[in-house]
Amino acid sequence: MLNEEPVGVAVLGLGNVGSEVVRIIEDSADDLAARIGAPLVLRGVGVRRVAADRGVPAELLTDNIEELVSRDDVDIVVELMGPVEPARKAILLALEHGKSVVTANKALLSRSTGELADAAERARVDLYFEAAVAGAIPVIRPLTQSLAGDTVRRVAGIVNGTTNYILSEMDSTGTDYASALADARALGYAEADPTADVEGFDAAAKAAILASIAFHTRVTADDVYREGISNITPDDVASARALGCTIKLLSICERITTAEGQQRVSARVYPALVPSSHPLATVNGAFNAVVVEAEAAGRLMFYGQGAGGAPTASAVTGDLVMAARNRVQGSRGPRESKYAQLPIAPIGDIVTRYYVSMDVADKPGVLSTVAAEFAQHEVSIAEVRQEGVADEDGRRVGARVVVVTHRAPEAALSETVAALADLDAVQRVASVLRLEGTGQ
Amino acid sequence: MLNEEPVGVAVLGLGNVGSEVVRIIEDSADDLAARIGAPLVLRGVGVRRVAADRGVPAELLTDNIEELVSRDDVDIVVELMGPVEPARKAILLALEHGKSVVTANKALLSRSTGELADAAERARVDLYFEAAVAGAIPVIRPLTQSLAGDTVRRVAGIVNGTTNYILSEMDSTGTDYASALADARALGYAEADPTADVEGFDAAAKAAILASIAFHTRVTADDVYREGISNITPDDVASARALGCTIKLLSICERITTAEGQQRVSARVYPALVPSSHPLATVNGAFNAVVVEAEAAGRLMFYGQGAGGAPTASAVTGDLVMAARNRVQGSRGPRESKYAQLPIAPIGDIVTRYYVSMDVADKPGVLSTVAAEFAQHEVSIAEVRQEGVADEDGRRVGARVVVVTHRAPEAALSETVAALADLDAVQRVASVLRLEGTGQ
Repeated sequence: MLNEEPVGVAVLGLGNVGSEVVRIIEDSADDLAARIGAPLVLRGVGVRRVAADRGVPAELLTDNIEELVSRDDVDIVVELMGPVEPARKAILLALEHGKSVVTANKALLSRSTGELADAAERARVDLYFEAAVAGAIPVIRPLTQSLAGDTVRRVAGIVNGTTNYILSEMDSTGTDYASALADARALGYAEADPTADVEGFDAAAKAAILASIAFHTRVTADDVYREGISNITPDDVASARALGCTIKLLSICERITTAEGQQRVSARVYPALVPSSHPLATVNGAFNAVVVEAEAAGRLMFYGQGAGGAPTASAVTGDLVMAARNRVQGSRGPRESKYAQLPIAPIGDIVTRYYVSMDVADKPGVLSTVAAEFAQHEVSIAEVRQEGVADEDGRRVGARVVVVTHRAPEAALSETVAALADLDAVQRVASVLRLEGTGQ
Repeated sequence: MLNEEPVGVAVLGLGNVGSEVVRIIEDSADDLAARIGAPLVLRGVGVRRVAADRGVPAELLTDNIEELVSRDDVDIVVELMGPVEPARKAILLALEHGKSVVTANKALLSRSTGELADAAERARVDLYFEAAVAGAIPVIRPLTQSLAGDTVRRVAGIVNGTTNYILSEMDSTGTDYASALADARALGYAEADPTADVEGFDAAAKAAILASIAFHTRVTADDVYREGISNITPDDVASARALGCTIKLLSICERITTAEGQQRVSARVYPALVPSSHPLATVNGAFNAVVVEAEAAGRLMFYGQGAGGAPTASAVTGDLVMAARNRVQGSRGPRESKYAQLPIAPIGDIVTRYYVSMDVADKPGVLSTVAAEFAQHEVSIAEVRQEGVADEDGRRVGARVVVVTHRAPEAALSETVAALADLDAVQRVASVLRLEGTGQ
């Protein structure tokens, strides 16, 4: 039953994920061969510097990526070296040579999706990237295949483990951002330079990929509105708790209908208050989860490990097996679907709920002045909390007002916040966060 | 860009799901055509009796199923008529005529999976059945494709909405089984004859399908050990609560290694105590969830609506779009993977934890006699609770002992229970349930 002709694989990059992929290819060789219909043979591993004791036979290692991805006996290239370059160049070269490509490179995909998809189309090969979003959790395939007959309305996910660990820590221990980040670093959950994670760049790249496939359109990382978590304070976390919420960094992709009846796509990343009863509120630590809302399917949730060598390798190897099986059968997986060509909705058009926290003068009439400013901009208030603020000696020196709004356009909220900041009674607007997942 | 040649579809059955599928094919025609690369055209709808006002143009309705599935202009047959027959005959005929088939018929698939898969293989067409397990929730595709490079250890799910609704009701209101079933009937969650649901036949069919694809082997409904929920009492629910658990009907598929190192598959359905902290414990009402544990991926969870016209139609239409796209591209989706050919593990070999509830004489020494019986069979006790049982006038007339064990083989537990029932001190063994999801 097994085809005699083996399927040749080149793996680029031998970090946590690459090493695991190589291990699975070797340890599960019989199973993979049976599932593919032909043996999978590792032809070479591309690394920046060839060195001994990397757990791979020395003759497989090479630093000549161009030669490796062009070899006649390589059918599939697995790109796990990042960052955007030299990965982009290697993938384009592989596709030009008719190799199917599996990659986990979300930064690259969210910038160059069109270029890569077009190259794959020209070569009539597969370009798979299940591991680019939410690690081991199947999200790309369910969206592109299982929901291919449905109309997706919204995708909202926790897709960055670093920030979720930091926010979970802040929520459970009351610690501040800097300490929680230091803990995350100590545990290996955050990199030495955590910018890509904590400022939301990683989550924005994933949002671009999710929005593209969910809505059959092209969305790049630049199209994604982005705020990070580095300004979140223990006060915000405590206020969120008092409101029955927890703060999560969400990647949200939404199909929006304008007042004129036009379809638009919004993709955005920001920390938001989520009610404790919402499925995403209980996703803690380094775990990821993605909630999909579709017209016929209703609400679906996918949950699991979003990072780490083995979980990411699971998704990569799944793609590898499917690409290999397609080679053996002469089939191809789904191509990029971008027919909808939806314009991007500016952030000002987004309608959601808000949490606004401000330090105010502790005197009569302030609350009514503040409330009047919201009313002036037609932003309806759902809930207000006022509490005294004490100095180090316990003397009351001011008050803090927290306002939770009903749904309102971002543009109206921004104007409200600017006007609030100008009020004499308002010392400063401490935080503006969204409230998501309340369904109203 | 669109292929001129349309893809012809025949839908068999016009119930809740069939009507929704027909509606989506019509309402989303442009989207589906763009995703497929060719228009999807409904050629006919097979029904038992042709009648007017079924929401479908009269000329599309036919009661001649054989003629419909053999038509030259039909490329894909969507079977939604159930039950096992006449669905089986219609599907086999469609496959023989080279049509790809999409079905949601779990009863048929769990009995005749081999026959159907072989027929699809001979015709070199697709046989898709995402909707057969857990309605709208993508489970089949993640297991067959996303996890194709991983080794699945265990699949445990709540895949029957009727029983989950009944158990959720019993848990939240304290009502008894008969009343909860009556409520489920009144709400349309249970059929007039609820046997297939409450006795676990439906969950067992789904377990057979899940085990087959998760472990690359053939498992039929007859291979699945099965217990229903009709014997669950309010006392069991209360005892479970006191133990920090809730009772759920679980479908469990497990890869087991025997003492001799042989791989076996266990597929079983039974009500079990699940700790409240476990992800499956919070799946309430008519919702479904499936937890997959794989070697590299770790634990994944999929959650959503497991039944109902629209959610099931979402899964069916996703399959339909994929099958149509394959037709247009000259591709084929994954075939049945049954290479592992694992033997079925008998229920006696299963190792899990147990909850045993018994009515005992209210006198000294009983607990020690009971405990000795467990020790005699090498079943280790983790927790014991004893409480008085009162008659209607509040007089203490006996005692109830609840024992929770550590992990033990089913065979040892069965012998223990038989021995307990023979003890003079034990009036009756009221319940024996498993305890799952404690990870020890």
